[in-house]
Amino acid sequence: MRMTVLTLFPEMFEGVFNTSILGQAQKKGIVSYDVVNFRDYSSDRHNRVDDYPYGGGGGMVLTPQPLFDAVKAQREDGAKEPRIILLCPQGERYDQRKAEELSKEDHLVFLCGHYEGYDERIREHLVTDEISIGDFVLTGGELGAMTIADSVTRLLPGALGNETSAVTDSHSTGLLEYPHYTRPSDYEGMKVPEVLLSGHHERIETWRREQALRRTFERRPDLLEKADLMEEDRQYIEKLKQERE
Amino acid sequence: MRMTVLTLFPEMFEGVFNTSILGQAQKKGIVSYDVVNFRDYSSDRHNRVDDYPYGGGGGMVLTPQPLFDAVKAQREDGAKEPRIILLCPQGERYDQRKAEELSKEDHLVFLCGHYEGYDERIREHLVTDEISIGDFVLTGGELGAMTIADSVTRLLPGALGNETSAVTDSHSTGLLEYPHYTRPSDYEGMKVPEVLLSGHHERIETWRREQALRRTFERRPDLLEKADLMEEDRQYIEKLKQERE
Repeated sequence: MRMTVLTLFPEMFEGVFNTSILGQAQKKGIVSYDVVNFRDYSSDRHNRVDDYPYGGGGGMVLTPQPLFDAVKAQREDGAKEPRIILLCPQGERYDQRKAEELSKEDHLVFLCGHYEGYDERIREHLVTDEISIGDFVLTGGELGAMTIADSVTRLLPGALGNETSAVTDSHSTGLLEYPHYTRPSDYEGMKVPEVLLSGHHERIETWRREQALRRTFERRPDLLEKADLMEEDRQYIEKLKQERE
Repeated sequence: MRMTVLTLFPEMFEGVFNTSILGQAQKKGIVSYDVVNFRDYSSDRHNRVDDYPYGGGGGMVLTPQPLFDAVKAQREDGAKEPRIILLCPQGERYDQRKAEELSKEDHLVFLCGHYEGYDERIREHLVTDEISIGDFVLTGGELGAMTIADSVTRLLPGALGNETSAVTDSHSTGLLEYPHYTRPSDYEGMKVPEVLLSGHHERIETWRREQALRRTFERRPDLLEKADLMEEDRQYIEKLKQERE
């Protein structure tokens, strides 16, 4: 897969794209990240990329020309059309379902604005997806692009080594994870639950399942509606409900 | 404000913390970012920070000692206790309200795991806040820590220059932003709406308000419930509802 980021701050991406899973995936040839400064595509003689808004008001607005031309330069003859993703607060909320959808594409192009608004013609005639990573105000689209790049890269075949695939699997149950414990069994008086030291696999499995159910019940009850539950899970949830009353 | 990140991948942060608003805020002395590799605090002779889980299963678990000791080293005598923030999928969902709450603190410490789970004693006895930035799977807590650092830094007095404060203000209405347009008025046949070229300020204001209402109605109707609406706004929303029927 190709991922192309169009940004005015390319230096922000180096640490993230060259480290850990993303750096390894790139070395293995599973994904290639290009970070492009779209100022380089400005046809303005001062390389400007923004201008004052029509109709007045504060702030600056990104002009259409540099972004349209920068996107055009990324297209390849005969290749599948890229998804052109605008990071913005008005976009649809990003989630794992969207990550899975995007992981099936050949080429993702991210448009990252910074402070400024976007000229509406960019949204209407260039962009295929408007995405927001959450209801909070960020300085630019860069952190959103990194977030999507990370979550999508993890889904590409071969991107994760064996050490991490198990962790991913635990999300497939639709429940929050059960608590983990490792050595020492007593750290400054804080102890690991006895059951985990018992060596009794069936009791350990039951304890973990119940802990996952309890945590999901307490923190994210909405997830229980969609989770894949067995009859004994439902009975345990009934018990949790009664405890609460 | 101080922000301290405890991570195994300190190199990921350099580009983000030194660029744009965050880099400027640090230069102005409004915030200081420290990025600390908590492996340096491991008392294991091989500097290990994780171990196999008690009770079996795949994946590795971060041991308590390096993180407890790394946090202890960040505390200052006589200073207000820091908020110790764990980035994890089980945490409360991050939003702007939480950003505002955190912006009133003196010191934020972020714990970023990577692949592994955390020993439960870290959650129970060390951490003050568990935060998730959204329902998607990321490789580690680092992008979450950057996201919180960015959104909180923006709220610190003096962090934003004049060029950006106007953009922030537009969020205070509780509506999505109206569309922006800038030069040229005709870009390859795509035109700016006539009203914005009219110079008629009252008509422009009405058009913008209606566009913001329309966009919010179409994309994020949940925001309308909490938005600060005037009588003519409510009438316009009624009209939008009738259009839909």
